[in-house]
Amino acid sequence: MPYTVQIKVMPLTELLDPQGKAVMGAIENLGITGIGDVRIGKHITLQVNADTEADAKKVAEEAASKILANPVMEYFEIEVEA
Amino acid sequence: MPYTVQIKVMPLTELLDPQGKAVMGAIENLGITGIGDVRIGKHITLQVNADTEADAKKVAEEAASKILANPVMEYFEIEVEA
Repeated sequence: MPYTVQIKVMPLTELLDPQGKAVMGAIENLGITGIGDVRIGKHITLQVNADTEADAKKVAEEAASKILANPVMEYFEIEVEA
Repeated sequence: MPYTVQIKVMPLTELLDPQGKAVMGAIENLGITGIGDVRIGKHITLQVNADTEADAKKVAEEAASKILANPVMEYFEIEVEA
């Protein structure tokens, strides 16, 4: 069965995010108000063929921990859609 | 009231995603099976101060369309969390 898996990879909260800081500055320069903080990471969509939703999640977790995220600087969250 | 806004910015589906293709190749080389397609985009988390959830969404939409996403190559989806 085909599943769509959404993976969010973000910089660890205890680390600075220079890209986010730069975009925050640009947002202020544009005059957009009300935004207090910006953090920027990656979003990855996988098409996974698996028997069950749990299997699809397992495959995505393997891919995320082996190649998509760097655990020294990033954490990831996985969401499986049928 | 503070809201956390999640913004997903992905390459338009009708466009090729060379970064995703490269990661797909790496996943195959690692011997991970069952993954048919990989697409890679950005994930942005905003902290927004607004009176209502709708206001927070409006601010995020302005930021996304003015600076976070390039409409020629990308689309975005916004999700507001209380």
